[in-house]
Amino acid sequence: MSSVDAGLPDDALLAVVRRGALVESVHRGRLAVCDPEGNVLEAAGDPEAYIYARSSAKPFQALPLILSGAADTFAFTDEELAVACASHNAEEPHLAAVRSILEKAGLTEEDLQSGAHLPLYRPEAAKLLRRGEEPRPIHSNCSGKHAGMLAVCAHEGYDTATYREPGHPLQRRILGLIAEVCGLREDEVLVAGDNCGVPAFALPLRSFATGLARIATGEGLSGENSVAARRIRDAMRGHPFMVAGTGRLDTELMDSTDLFVKGGAEAVLAVGSREGWGMALKISDGAERAVRPVALAALGRRGVAVPEAVSNVRGLHGEVVGEIGPWT
Amino acid sequence: MSSVDAGLPDDALLAVVRRGALVESVHRGRLAVCDPEGNVLEAAGDPEAYIYARSSAKPFQALPLILSGAADTFAFTDEELAVACASHNAEEPHLAAVRSILEKAGLTEEDLQSGAHLPLYRPEAAKLLRRGEEPRPIHSNCSGKHAGMLAVCAHEGYDTATYREPGHPLQRRILGLIAEVCGLREDEVLVAGDNCGVPAFALPLRSFATGLARIATGEGLSGENSVAARRIRDAMRGHPFMVAGTGRLDTELMDSTDLFVKGGAEAVLAVGSREGWGMALKISDGAERAVRPVALAALGRRGVAVPEAVSNVRGLHGEVVGEIGPWT
Repeated sequence: MSSVDAGLPDDALLAVVRRGALVESVHRGRLAVCDPEGNVLEAAGDPEAYIYARSSAKPFQALPLILSGAADTFAFTDEELAVACASHNAEEPHLAAVRSILEKAGLTEEDLQSGAHLPLYRPEAAKLLRRGEEPRPIHSNCSGKHAGMLAVCAHEGYDTATYREPGHPLQRRILGLIAEVCGLREDEVLVAGDNCGVPAFALPLRSFATGLARIATGEGLSGENSVAARRIRDAMRGHPFMVAGTGRLDTELMDSTDLFVKGGAEAVLAVGSREGWGMALKISDGAERAVRPVALAALGRRGVAVPEAVSNVRGLHGEVVGEIGPWT
Repeated sequence: MSSVDAGLPDDALLAVVRRGALVESVHRGRLAVCDPEGNVLEAAGDPEAYIYARSSAKPFQALPLILSGAADTFAFTDEELAVACASHNAEEPHLAAVRSILEKAGLTEEDLQSGAHLPLYRPEAAKLLRRGEEPRPIHSNCSGKHAGMLAVCAHEGYDTATYREPGHPLQRRILGLIAEVCGLREDEVLVAGDNCGVPAFALPLRSFATGLARIATGEGLSGENSVAARRIRDAMRGHPFMVAGTGRLDTELMDSTDLFVKGGAEAVLAVGSREGWGMALKISDGAERAVRPVALAALGRRGVAVPEAVSNVRGLHGEVVGEIGPWT
């Protein structure tokens, strides 16, 4: 029984994990590359089926920072705009930028409702535990997004206590913007709860890839949306570390290419190129480990100079026990 | 393109992760239930294709402890035999049992070559970091298996420095036993490196399920293998905590049913029932989160009283954001 037989979207074998002479595990997924007009340039699996964009929607969720004028009023730096789009590692520069956003907007860490989890970057998590501390909302990978949302609320006079609710004016505005940028009606974007407590958005893979092409190029957007999209894109491109951090794919790819890149939970990846395309990827099983090889292979097919897509898997003694790579 | 089109084993949709109104992620896999004669009682996906048993092979890897006489010579308790079959949490009772095995065999922690990783049980990992310590080989989930292997070497006069090598007499003996118990020729069992540095074994899913049925019942085995298998089974059944630990599926299922249960890396699960069957499960993508719902659904179909197979997924604020459950 394939997924499509079961009424679920058709996907394709995209990555394999080898051990010894055998394939030990496999990862399936869906991928769409689109231009700003919505034409599908490449697809694997069904490009019309929905995905939850999760944190890959953060660049869209940051657009009101520009459109409202909050970024100018509060004089946010590009580093701060980048961390507002981040799923960050909670390394010191990330925390400093989040604190600065809050301070400039007249708010404090107490206002953050991002939920708490240990820093994504393991050495930072270990340092925090060694200090005998518990993680706070600022350590959440989403704290920049929440700080940015709070700053828009402060600027617009929206309530800052209820900013996470789907009916809050900021969240309504974000929903409208995502629909507009991706060429959908608002009721075609489905809303659920993200793990950090704000709305998560689901939309067809093709529409998401189209929106990414538009953010990357500024094409296909209204004048003010185009200006806002390019400013967000340039802030992320200018500060790859702020968008993720040490050892993270988003940072690595933005450091080494001219793409803009944003990952999301459950193995989503959003990529945009100034050359006129956006790419949206979803690994069907949500495995983060498959995103890198699949993305590198897909980017290679688009002519982007990328590192080797196959990487070794090592055991506890440092020995190579296998490899993970794209299925070709 | 389905996996089978690509020359990889056919699998089946087994679990779904829902968020809001949509399925966000899916897990495919293979499952076989066999009797001790090797008849397939139930299958999903191709039962003849190979899987790496990984840590699900530990009960087989512990058989030489009984067969060599080491368990009797060193007066190992059932708790110690259980931890020799464990992927343990590195909670204090696990560490104490591993130390006791080593001490009784005239060895020390220094002899362990299990590699080091943080305790699987997060509170233990946090405690270790808060004490400013680094994980040692004894904290490895495999340290009981390694201690058991070392004890056999000490008893048999095998070299204890090279016990991890595939050509070492103990590893050759284990390979022969796995083949024999599962009804295969030795050259039908494929060997690669496990992450802890000892051989990992690959075999057809059906053969593995058959071997599990034999260990669970003692049927279909030579006299001494039957005695050894039942002693290992009873040690695990008698001490479910020692096989895994707090919050772990193996422990939960052995506490609440009369099955014997052993999980393995890359989402493998081995189950045996005295009622005359063994079940082997492999989630194709290696996702541990899918093992529980798929196993509970499969066990329910076999008439085992099990908890609800669907469980909530919660966000950082404790709210329900979705659920994971078997695909039905």
